[in-house]
Amino acid sequence: MSQEEFVVGIDLGGTNVRAAVVSRRGEIKAWAQAPIEAARGVEQGILRIQNLIHQVMEQAGIKQIAGIGFGSTGPLDRENGFIQNPYTLPGWENVDVRTPLSRAFDAPLIMENDADAAALGEAWLGSGKGTSRFALVTVGTGVGSAFILDGHIYRGMDGEHPEAGHQVLDPNGPPCYCGARGCLESLVSGPAIVESARRAIPQYPESLLARLEQNGHPLDAVQVVEAARQGDRLAQQIIREAATYLGLGLVNVLLFYLPECIALGGGVMKNYDLFIPHILQVLSQHDVVVPTRRVRITPASLGNKAGVLGAARAIWQQIRG
Amino acid sequence: MSQEEFVVGIDLGGTNVRAAVVSRRGEIKAWAQAPIEAARGVEQGILRIQNLIHQVMEQAGIKQIAGIGFGSTGPLDRENGFIQNPYTLPGWENVDVRTPLSRAFDAPLIMENDADAAALGEAWLGSGKGTSRFALVTVGTGVGSAFILDGHIYRGMDGEHPEAGHQVLDPNGPPCYCGARGCLESLVSGPAIVESARRAIPQYPESLLARLEQNGHPLDAVQVVEAARQGDRLAQQIIREAATYLGLGLVNVLLFYLPECIALGGGVMKNYDLFIPHILQVLSQHDVVVPTRRVRITPASLGNKAGVLGAARAIWQQIRG
Repeated sequence: MSQEEFVVGIDLGGTNVRAAVVSRRGEIKAWAQAPIEAARGVEQGILRIQNLIHQVMEQAGIKQIAGIGFGSTGPLDRENGFIQNPYTLPGWENVDVRTPLSRAFDAPLIMENDADAAALGEAWLGSGKGTSRFALVTVGTGVGSAFILDGHIYRGMDGEHPEAGHQVLDPNGPPCYCGARGCLESLVSGPAIVESARRAIPQYPESLLARLEQNGHPLDAVQVVEAARQGDRLAQQIIREAATYLGLGLVNVLLFYLPECIALGGGVMKNYDLFIPHILQVLSQHDVVVPTRRVRITPASLGNKAGVLGAARAIWQQIRG
Repeated sequence: MSQEEFVVGIDLGGTNVRAAVVSRRGEIKAWAQAPIEAARGVEQGILRIQNLIHQVMEQAGIKQIAGIGFGSTGPLDRENGFIQNPYTLPGWENVDVRTPLSRAFDAPLIMENDADAAALGEAWLGSGKGTSRFALVTVGTGVGSAFILDGHIYRGMDGEHPEAGHQVLDPNGPPCYCGARGCLESLVSGPAIVESARRAIPQYPESLLARLEQNGHPLDAVQVVEAARQGDRLAQQIIREAATYLGLGLVNVLLFYLPECIALGGGVMKNYDLFIPHILQVLSQHDVVVPTRRVRITPASLGNKAGVLGAARAIWQQIRG
């Protein structure tokens, strides 16, 4: 009797690391997460990840794994299995995760950008299941994107990762660290929404947002969303503007990739219902040269399991084709 | 002794039709073109194409062809081999070209969008040779685009053709028939350049362009380009603006596809040298999240042979894999 094989999928973000034991068919046998506390140092961090893997293996009752899929917030050196991300993981530059983890678990390790891993997970078992072209756009602190073509992560020249979240959308828009003015991220991310509220507040002293700010609360995107839900005009206008830009960004995703499905994920898209009417209106206005109405727009469906599942899928694809 | 096989590549535009006899390695054994005079009717047109094929076969000294690659200005029904283009081929709607031509030459026929065919030709033997990801952007009366991935035309959902030429780039820009305001085509095509000159002329009564218009010449893009070459400030400013927008459009091509090479073709790009300094400046300003500086930007190199060669390549791929 041949024993069933398992891999471990890792999802390393700026705050938490998640790990899951995953079967070849995508069943999660065990799942756990822990704070990464990156600032405590790389060695501590690697050890923490190692312990988390031990923990989920124990939960799953397995002694051996066939591989490790490692999804991580980038930049990464995928080929060598290095993290190059001092931005969201303070101090994590030139961090070799492959060598220690491969050695500790006697298993190959594949590294993927976190947006790619999440998209691969969604295409495998979630919102993009059954499609041959699937785009994921995540809207949160930043705007990430990934494209899955025939079940595989689309990569550009030299294995580089597409960044549709930084597409130029309005050259008169706000500046972004990416070098553009008015890239999608600068217009629709959580911080962009807050910034656009802050700019408008002086003209709307009666708005709920103005009152919140007067009370000394530093405004965040959740407050803008909640104010919009409570009927605050300014907040609704800000959401409408952001959603319209997001709709235009999705028009471009469509014009370039023509996917069967675009899924929306990330923190801001927990409020999908607030954004989607405006997005669909924009799409229907741009239905002439490509069939925008035939594309399915949907919320990402795997939540915080997308990353670990996609990472698991990536290592399965590498070791079993 | 096995005799060498040949196919015929066709390139049907709004004005001319071109045909070539092409070997499997891409040698053009014979080439010819003729006006299509679409308004004379579909039957006449098909006959004209048929005669052109006979002509090049005779020139090449062959009696048989292994297939026909048919590149055409769209919209097309690729699958059934129908032309659906009353816009640039007046009267050509629901025109079955496959049945009569396949029958006349006892050969299979594959149909491709003309931008796709040109890009496939360039990727096979021209500016994109040796790349695994290649984008062609043609700037003329319209702005076309195509993407070649691993030597094959990239197609979207239901075989649809990407239209990066209509990407939204400035929501405050001019309206386009595609439904967008400020799509790339509305900002950089020949007519867009003329339109932007016309709008500016009243403020520049001393400019060469103002004088040309006063003389009663309807302005065209060639005149704007020539005025810019002669040092006319207004014309130079208009070219710089269009080139800057084109640069931003290419930044987006890069962010989505990350090709090793982007080639620029089409009538307006005969003045590549006027545009490229501004384009490269824009690219270098957007080098943070993707390596824009590592991408080769180049003029398309096959001129009016790109279409027939690409069409030939498409039928070779179908019949010989």
